[in-house]
Parts: sequence; C-alpha cells; structure tokens
Amino acid sequence: MDLSEIKFTRGVPDPVIFPKKHLAECACAVLEQHGDFVLQYGPVGGFPPLRDWIAGQYKVENERILIAQGSLQIVDTISRIFIKPGDIVYIEEPSYDRSITVFKRAGARLVGIPLENDGLDVDALSERLRMGEKPVLFYIIPDFQNPSGKVLSLEKRKRVIALAKEYDFWVIEDSPYRKLRYKGEELPSLFELGHDSVMHISSFSKLIAPGLRTGYVIAPLDVARRLLKFSEDTYINPSYLNQGIVHEFIQRGLLETNLIELKKVYAPRLLTMLDALDEHMSNLADWTRPDGGFFIGILLRQNSKADILWDRARKVNLHLSDGRGFFTNGYGEQFVRLPFCALTEKEIVEGVERLAQLIRAI
Amino acid sequence: MDLSEIKFTRGVPDPVIFPKKHLAECACAVLEQHGDFVLQYGPVGGFPPLRDWIAGQYKVENERILIAQGSLQIVDTISRIFIKPGDIVYIEEPSYDRSITVFKRAGARLVGIPLENDGLDVDALSERLRMGEKPVLFYIIPDFQNPSGKVLSLEKRKRVIALAKEYDFWVIEDSPYRKLRYKGEELPSLFELGHDSVMHISSFSKLIAPGLRTGYVIAPLDVARRLLKFSEDTYINPSYLNQGIVHEFIQRGLLETNLIELKKVYAPRLLTMLDALDEHMSNLADWTRPDGGFFIGILLRQNSKADILWDRARKVNLHLSDGRGFFTNGYGEQFVRLPFCALTEKEIVEGVERLAQLIRAI
Repeated sequence: MDLSEIKFTRGVPDPVIFPKKHLAECACAVLEQHGDFVLQYGPVGGFPPLRDWIAGQYKVENERILIAQGSLQIVDTISRIFIKPGDIVYIEEPSYDRSITVFKRAGARLVGIPLENDGLDVDALSERLRMGEKPVLFYIIPDFQNPSGKVLSLEKRKRVIALAKEYDFWVIEDSPYRKLRYKGEELPSLFELGHDSVMHISSFSKLIAPGLRTGYVIAPLDVARRLLKFSEDTYINPSYLNQGIVHEFIQRGLLETNLIELKKVYAPRLLTMLDALDEHMSNLADWTRPDGGFFIGILLRQNSKADILWDRARKVNLHLSDGRGFFTNGYGEQFVRLPFCALTEKEIVEGVERLAQLIRAI
Repeated sequence: MDLSEIKFTRGVPDPVIFPKKHLAECACAVLEQHGDFVLQYGPVGGFPPLRDWIAGQYKVENERILIAQGSLQIVDTISRIFIKPGDIVYIEEPSYDRSITVFKRAGARLVGIPLENDGLDVDALSERLRMGEKPVLFYIIPDFQNPSGKVLSLEKRKRVIALAKEYDFWVIEDSPYRKLRYKGEELPSLFELGHDSVMHISSFSKLIAPGLRTGYVIAPLDVARRLLKFSEDTYINPSYLNQGIVHEFIQRGLLETNLIELKKVYAPRLLTMLDALDEHMSNLADWTRPDGGFFIGILLRQNSKADILWDRARKVNLHLSDGRGFFTNGYGEQFVRLPFCALTEKEIVEGVERLAQLIRAI
C-alpha cells in the first residue's frame, strides 16, 4: 500500500494555524492579572468579562448567558432539563451525530425533518404540527449545517420561528460555523428573529481552538436560570482560565485577525473540494455548494451499502465517517460527509478522486 | 455594624497561595511544546502524559483512568450510569452536599449511615445489609471527610470493603483531601484495600487550584470504559490545556513543594481553630480533632433552629453554611461546618468567638 492516508473523518479545525504563541501570551496575562480569581471556584455562568463581552455582542443581559465546557455539554444540559423519556424532539435529517446521541440518551423520540437545498422542509414541518404532533424542541443548525453544509433560507427561518411560537416548542439553534462564511451575506439568526423561542448555542472551538472547550448558550432569563442551576449542580463551574484566555484574545483584537486568517486558509480548500466534486462526481452524487463552514455533505445516486463502501475505502487508505450516524432510523447509507478544513488541497483532490473510483466500482 | 465580615461558608483553598507565576510558566511551556495537540479535540480520557503519570502513581493501566472537569462531574457521570430512579444509595451522614444533590437528581433513594468518631458506623451498615437492603453504591469520603473532618479507621475500611464484596455494591471513594494530612500517618485508601469494588475519585483542586478543573477517577477496566464512552457522548473531551498545565507543574517538581507550602499555611490554621473551639465551645458543642483537610464539623449540644442561628449570625457579619444540606431527610439543624483553610488565624478566632456567643444566647 503506497497510497497516503486521507482522513475524511476529520471534521475539525487545522491545528497548524492555531494561534499558539498568542494564546500562550494571553494565558500568561490572564494568570498575572486575574490569577487569584480564575484559579478559584466561581459562579457557574462563566468568567464575568467574557460573559459581558458576549452579552454586548448579542445585546442581551449577561444573566441570560451560560458559558460551558463546549457546546455539546450545553446540549446535554438542555436535554436533561427539557426532555422526558418519550418526548418528541425534531432534528434536521441529517443532523450532527453527537447531538443525536445526546437526545436519544435523554429518551427522546426523534423525528427527522428532511433537508432541502435551502434548509429544512418547512412544509413537512408545518404539516406534522398541524396534525397534532407536539415536539418539545427542534434542534437546528441553520448556518453551514453539520453534516450537509446547507444554509436555512431567510424566508424559512421566519416560518420556523412563527411555527415555534404558534405550536409552543423550543428552537435550539446551534451555530458554531456562522462566522466562518467565506462569501455572501450573513442571514439573521433564528435568535435574532425570535429570541423568546430560541436557545442560541455557539462556541469558540471553530474560531480559536476546540481545546479551549469554550461554548455558550443564550436563553430567555427564566430558562437561563434553570440552565445555570443545573450546571452548577453538575460541575460547580467551568474553567475560568480557558475563558479568560478567550477573553484576552478578543481584547487584543486577535479574534478578528484570526477569523481573517482562517478564511484565507479554509476558503480555497472549499473551492478545491467543489472543483474536485464537479470533476469526478458529477454523475455519481448530489451535493450543495456551501459558502462557508466545514463540510460538504454528498448523497450518492446509486444505492450503496455503507459497510461495503467504508471497507473498500479503508483498503485504499481513505477514512470515511459512517453516514448513518447523522440520520435517525438507520438511513444514511448513501450519505458521505466531506470535511475540508483540516485537509490540504492535495489531500482533498486525491481523496475525492479515490472516493469517485470506489463509487464507480460498486 | 463595625464587625468585619467572616465567611465560614468558604470551604475553598486560600487563593493568596495559588502558585500563579509557576502556573503561567507551565501554561506557556505546554502551549509551546504541545500546542497543536492540547488545542485540538482529543480522546476523552484526558491529556495522555497526565493520564500516564496518574497511572504510575496508582500502579494501574492508564485505560482505567478518566480525567474530567472536576470531581463532581465524575460523580454525576457515575450517577447517570449506575443509578436508576428508586435505587438505594448509601452516604455517610452527614456528607458532601453537592454529591447529595447529584444523587437525588439521579432519582436515588438516599440512606444515611451515621458517622462515629472513627468514621461511618459499620455495625449499622452491616445490619442494614443483613436485613436485605440492596444499595447500588456507597459514597464515602474516608479522609478528612467533608463536612465533618473525620477519618475512617483502618479496621473499618477493611470491613467496608469486605461488605462491598459480600453484598455486591460499589464503593465510590472521594478523596480530595487525602494528601492534605498535617500530622500522623496516612491510612491505606479503600481503593488500595479492594480496587475491584471501588471507584476512586481525586482531584488537583485542593492541591494546586480549583480553577484548573482537573479531577479524575480510577475504576475497574470495564467500568472505566463505560465512564469514558458516556463522558465522550456528553462533552467530547475535557480541556487538555488545563491538564497539560497540571502535568507540567508536576514534572517540574512543583506539586511536592506546593504541598509543603499548603501544609505550612493550613496546619496552623487548623490548630488555631481547635484551640479556639476548646476555649469557647467546650460546653456548647462536640467535634472531632482532624489531622488534615479543610473542615471541622461541630455538633451543637443544645437544640437550635438553624434558621434562627443563621439569621442572627448574619446580623454579626458571620456567614454560615446551612448544615441541613449535608444531611438527608432534613436533619442537620445542629450541625455547623467550620472551614479553616481560606481564613486567617485572626478571622478563625474571632469567628469562633462570635459563634459561641450566638449559641449561648439561643
């Protein structure tokens, strides 16, 4: 085997561009200036200056914010408070596999709302609600969705919010990729369109580094209070040191420059992957053309057995995520999530070529 | 009111002696040497060099270790896996209030086993088990117990382990204060006496700083695998940066010197508190004389109404924890937890004096 290893499983940032030196300086500064404070126990909501900064960005009171050890822990906390076994939870189909696992563990009965090119099928959603189905919450990744890369259109965002109000369910908006738009115009978030019905989750994992484990949620005040209490009862408080580093990084103007740097590296990788797909996959699969984020999800036209495809892929040193993890009810045999951020352009081109050859041979 | 504020609620380390400068240097070193690694996502078990170091300390395989965001999150994870609603969980009475909250939230039916001067009443335990009660786990803080300060005797440790094997329940050994012994000889841990029946939890919160949020558990391999999987499904992985700082701190020999420093500061505070209790409380309350840890728990001889005592205390600027939080079933009116590590000797003497005056006046 002389084929180099290509990991289409790597839905992560490229560590080569982590701002290590800057983060080291920020860590020193935080420990020097706020050492006694960040090293002690403290209130669960998070390092107060970072909480204030987020509050300012979103124009909300800081009591509505919980900063935690990454977004997934927040999804888990929400699930433990709001989902009783047997409760209906809507997700986009496909959706983020780790969130699906969290909802299932809470005992949710998951219902997948299909994705169209401009995001979830709101007619299907509306129909289910009109027939009397009562979801407690709808988990949506509206911007550069994981795993599909799709963006929910403005018109559909408005309709989702209207339905959430009419039928009284929570929208959980998970938005880690929102700021990683490589072209085009940002759409209003679901939170901006209807913050009484939305818990908005975001994170610095994709904008600075996942290892800082700093995600946050903004919720209506009464909900925020429940999230805070539940979180304190679970882990007392998150690491203020990490949150202090994030805050210092922002104060020094480094978040903005880092975002520019990330886009400079990631945007050409997205284009390279789109070109490679056009060249090698045009009769084999369908995909959307995202303007940002980490992923392009492709749907194979031919019926394929995932197990066979993954096995053969491994034999040519190509690693693929199991598409079925992104679906409820065992669908996903024909779905392949292709991440492009942590791969070089050479790896992207070779990986798509190898994948196309395999699909043709099935 | 010209009485200075005294907080007997502060069951925390003294931030004045946090090794801030050393930790800043360690943070820089970790980001320089392992930046790409600690800033990325990674396996849930923890920063591998720290995991290996802990494994070496306890002479176990590193696969048996989970390092997490503080000990309480580990107690929560254990509860979610092992406790079904209605299951019986034994705790020492009194016990750590935050763990009690976690067990209750998991739906446990809590049974308190009374504490004697040499730790839990093993005869009472044995009797309950012989009568057929079937606990799933017994949560024990054997060294310098929170909130009482008591130490479980060697003979009782052996009997608890024998009972755990005979009646097939898990011992959760929570040991954050074990290394903070100011005099006398360390006893074997429950883990050392019977590691097949024990999940041993410890933490660097009291030995370095709580803000690093670094606790860990050692469990039998099959249990560890379940804890790891469940934790990964909850928060992907903990902060390697914090764990890397802990590891670097240890590698530089700073943990040992820090422990010496902590003992030098805390030991006289314990003695001061014991002296103050002898002087002012000898006819009012009973207490044990711990050789380490953070707390002396005192039991008032007179019947007192906690609410009245706390109210009057607040009026003389003395803050007390609610003793009832450490008990099941609403006991604890006469129990006061007195922490001594984060208070000056002057505050300790004045605080005990003020408390004695209040008790006399009830």
